Amino acid sequence: MRYSPRLATVKRSYIREILKATQDPAIISFAGGLPSPDHFPSQAFAEAAHAVLTENGAAVLQYSITEGYPPLREYIARRYADTLGLDVPMEQILITTGSQQGLDLMAKVFLDPGDGVLMERPGYLGAIQAFSLFGAAFDTVDLGPTGVDLAQLEAGLAKKPKLFYAVPNFQNPSGCTYDEPTRREVARLLAGSDTVLVEDNPYGELRFSGTPLPPLRAFAQGACTVLLGSFSKIASPGMRVGWLVADPDLMHKLVTAKQASDLHTSIFTQRVLHRFLTDNDLDAHIAVIRKAYGERCQCMLQAIRASFPEEVRYTEPEGGMFLWVQLPEGLSSERLFQKAIARKVAFVPGHPFYVDGTANSLRLNFSNSTPERIEEGIHRLAECLKELLATR
Amino acid sequence: MRYSPRLATVKRSYIREILKATQDPAIISFAGGLPSPDHFPSQAFAEAAHAVLTENGAAVLQYSITEGYPPLREYIARRYADTLGLDVPMEQILITTGSQQGLDLMAKVFLDPGDGVLMERPGYLGAIQAFSLFGAAFDTVDLGPTGVDLAQLEAGLAKKPKLFYAVPNFQNPSGCTYDEPTRREVARLLAGSDTVLVEDNPYGELRFSGTPLPPLRAFAQGACTVLLGSFSKIASPGMRVGWLVADPDLMHKLVTAKQASDLHTSIFTQRVLHRFLTDNDLDAHIAVIRKAYGERCQCMLQAIRASFPEEVRYTEPEGGMFLWVQLPEGLSSERLFQKAIARKVAFVPGHPFYVDGTANSLRLNFSNSTPERIEEGIHRLAECLKELLATR
Repeated sequence: MRYSPRLATVKRSYIREILKATQDPAIISFAGGLPSPDHFPSQAFAEAAHAVLTENGAAVLQYSITEGYPPLREYIARRYADTLGLDVPMEQILITTGSQQGLDLMAKVFLDPGDGVLMERPGYLGAIQAFSLFGAAFDTVDLGPTGVDLAQLEAGLAKKPKLFYAVPNFQNPSGCTYDEPTRREVARLLAGSDTVLVEDNPYGELRFSGTPLPPLRAFAQGACTVLLGSFSKIASPGMRVGWLVADPDLMHKLVTAKQASDLHTSIFTQRVLHRFLTDNDLDAHIAVIRKAYGERCQCMLQAIRASFPEEVRYTEPEGGMFLWVQLPEGLSSERLFQKAIARKVAFVPGHPFYVDGTANSLRLNFSNSTPERIEEGIHRLAECLKELLATR
Repeated sequence: MRYSPRLATVKRSYIREILKATQDPAIISFAGGLPSPDHFPSQAFAEAAHAVLTENGAAVLQYSITEGYPPLREYIARRYADTLGLDVPMEQILITTGSQQGLDLMAKVFLDPGDGVLMERPGYLGAIQAFSLFGAAFDTVDLGPTGVDLAQLEAGLAKKPKLFYAVPNFQNPSGCTYDEPTRREVARLLAGSDTVLVEDNPYGELRFSGTPLPPLRAFAQGACTVLLGSFSKIASPGMRVGWLVADPDLMHKLVTAKQASDLHTSIFTQRVLHRFLTDNDLDAHIAVIRKAYGERCQCMLQAIRASFPEEVRYTEPEGGMFLWVQLPEGLSSERLFQKAIARKVAFVPGHPFYVDGTANSLRLNFSNSTPERIEEGIHRLAECLKELLATR
């Protein structure tokens, strides 16, 4: 078979492979990136689906326009105004088949083999995959508790990458959030470049402590920015509905690319989602999720403080679904994984989040386990860590 | 903006642009490729959606696996066995976000700029778009009432294109169907090549006259073939659920590409569709569609026979949604379009279906208009044609 060489550089999702290995319900899994299914509004969706199909089945089941269902795009525009004070005309919003497709479309519109893409380090695996498929040459900027390293960002932008991909709120995998001074400085550096900022914000609404901050886009006057959003973490990931905000000229290119990719995102899911959003109180629903995730995160942090060896470092997220653990020098997160899985605890070792090698780090998901299982799982992990340290 | 050069070669869908222009309900439109919304099973879908969300909302709304919902893949495998006698293991079926995404994934896995793709002439616009985006170098084989020109196919395959894209049943745009001797010969030619056959079969179940024929795949032992399928024409296009059949090695590559493209197709739509398929009689539903489309096609053909000038040629499809009209030399289908739209009739001029220039041809859709409107529309088109001929 004469395959394209493009495939050779794409890592298959290590995480999705791990997920398959953790189907056993006895395993306490901190591995996935799954929202809590306890908080899916199934009944409200059942009613929304029944209503749109009964009232307007012909339009709900027919082909539709590539840009997306206009009332859903208006809803998103209004929500940007209400929650972030952002003025985004609905014409600049493209509905995508999950925000993963937003990454695919950006790659289609911008990337040829060897084109530079600047990533956070560690970085979001789905973005690494999407850009790899189009032959991106990656460069990285270290990400810490206050955001990216600004000196590295300046040096990285000087090499004129086509895209800079950033997740400023509760990043996956690290849980880190850019503080306001960092946001301002990132925006200033971008305004002086012709690199396009791809600002991904799947977790922004999931803040359970600290103060909400405006997106990079709000500071980045004069820079070209694209904002990605998603209903996956606030309504349902299985529906695969996300969106992308872009200026008109870029939007035109993205719509062409989307036509060629899947014609349009399911109008059925778009309309069910829109009906759910208009018939229900989304903010009340998000408040419930925030509270639950905040409790789970606190529970995990307390268990870590109580039981992990002193030398282990970890982030303390103000929102989102993940925290990040850094093992002492010389300890392998892969070896820890082997020990942990034997005790029926799973997590994701850090190396798939690096484009430039492995590391002694790991990602823990707290959204998809009950507090009881979090305590038990962290307790088991702590025992594995102590064994590893003892045999170092 | 430093866009990729790949975009420059992708035509935006002329058809979708025409569709926007024909939103006026007073226009009799033969332009779209829309199934008849009169035959969408809205109520059955409303019940299916309500049932799956009520009974198993957590799984229906959560992230899912890239390959697709296993029971839906099993259903498709069983249907291949029952309707075509094809033995397709469910592991070789990948659910896609409409069959358009199947084309995008094939392009991702195989095509680099300049790679050869052999197309039927005229050819399916969605495939031209998907392959253009990856820099395909197109070559064409004329398509007539019994299938592709075999001498041209042999010459085309000798140039070792990576893909040959074929729609053997009721092709879009021509309505042509490969007869059995042509299928055998196409299969023989392919078996001696290392070109991958991409056999697209969206309309296969919509046969309203003549004898069903096995797919090319059934004859093509020893050739590498990929079969695309879709629920768009037999259930709902708006849901965007299609599939792709491929051997294990290729399937592995396609799954990697799909992960990077949209993680997975909406599990909500997959499960609603599967519930609809198991709770209802799909064959009875298809029989209703077939009968309606057969009547509409006959109505269009009778009106054409009764009113079109003698020199105009047209295909007589045995199924599907389209027929193809060839104007006499020197008559422009673009000029006809201008005249027709002034009389509130729309169709698609033929040139977007050619990768190598325009033609005096046009595509007429018969599935999405009532017999009354078909008669009236063809009558008006005939008058436009006579005027054009008179001023030639």
